[in-house]
Amino acid sequence: MPSRTDFSEMTCSIARAWDVIGEPWTPLILRDLAIGVRRFELLRQDLGVSTNVLASRIRVLEDHGVVRREPYREGGRTREEYVLTQMGAELVPVLAAVMSWGDRWLSPGGAPAEVLHESCGGCGVSASVVCGDCGEPLLAEDMRFRRGPGGAAGPGTQIVGALDPS
Amino acid sequence: MPSRTDFSEMTCSIARAWDVIGEPWTPLILRDLAIGVRRFELLRQDLGVSTNVLASRIRVLEDHGVVRREPYREGGRTREEYVLTQMGAELVPVLAAVMSWGDRWLSPGGAPAEVLHESCGGCGVSASVVCGDCGEPLLAEDMRFRRGPGGAAGPGTQIVGALDPS
Repeated sequence: MPSRTDFSEMTCSIARAWDVIGEPWTPLILRDLAIGVRRFELLRQDLGVSTNVLASRIRVLEDHGVVRREPYREGGRTREEYVLTQMGAELVPVLAAVMSWGDRWLSPGGAPAEVLHESCGGCGVSASVVCGDCGEPLLAEDMRFRRGPGGAAGPGTQIVGALDPS
Repeated sequence: MPSRTDFSEMTCSIARAWDVIGEPWTPLILRDLAIGVRRFELLRQDLGVSTNVLASRIRVLEDHGVVRREPYREGGRTREEYVLTQMGAELVPVLAAVMSWGDRWLSPGGAPAEVLHESCGGCGVSASVVCGDCGEPLLAEDMRFRRGPGGAAGPGTQIVGALDPS
């Protein structure tokens, strides 16, 4: 029986997302898969993480449908590598937004990595989070949160789950 | 001496960001501050977290400059509440992007919360991550990562830190 709080049971999409991607190492595994480091041994080498922890984190991602295994041939043998599903691929821009924030606030020596946006030719582009309606950058001071159709008060949302939905 | 891996020492803005925001409860504390739940006791009630854990998480956020204390008057006494700094405010759109992903993939019963974008009047808007150059949505298949000016191979980036920067 795990003693960890189960964030997946909270009525909050941030808590539910954190239940999938929040554990230590997980965002770096997703980063590596996005970059093209897809084999277990290469992931382990890149991260410097133990075999047990890496296997456990990948299992969680597979269980949630973020990652799937894909066979490849090497030296006459069939082996498996990990690839992002559509659910996982949609996390990559989100991680890029996290990275841009980290570049700005936590990497004074310069961005450790750059994103090339191949379809526009932009290199070293920053990821900007915009409003799905007007396309303008979302700024905290312009955003207001209210209860949605799936909202409810409960653990993790005892007050905010009761916010006026109108 | 903490046995936890120190992600802040990795040459990766995602790892550095996770060192600040990755711990359990932290994104929910940031969420609540963005929504306007700013007092310790209200945060504790909303989340259902222990006093010790909440105090510890807030201390980390203060130490990193994401949150600061601000005095307010109540019943003739001066008390303190927590507010997001500029560094913290810039995390709110990033959390909205996480939330939109969670809405889409993990909340089949409908979005628990909606974002109103006050400057455009959009309600229930989704947060979209776009290229800072062309403004088009960033899609995983169009993104390529390369080493940036602050990049280096090391723990957590043993392979990807050596990627060709050109």
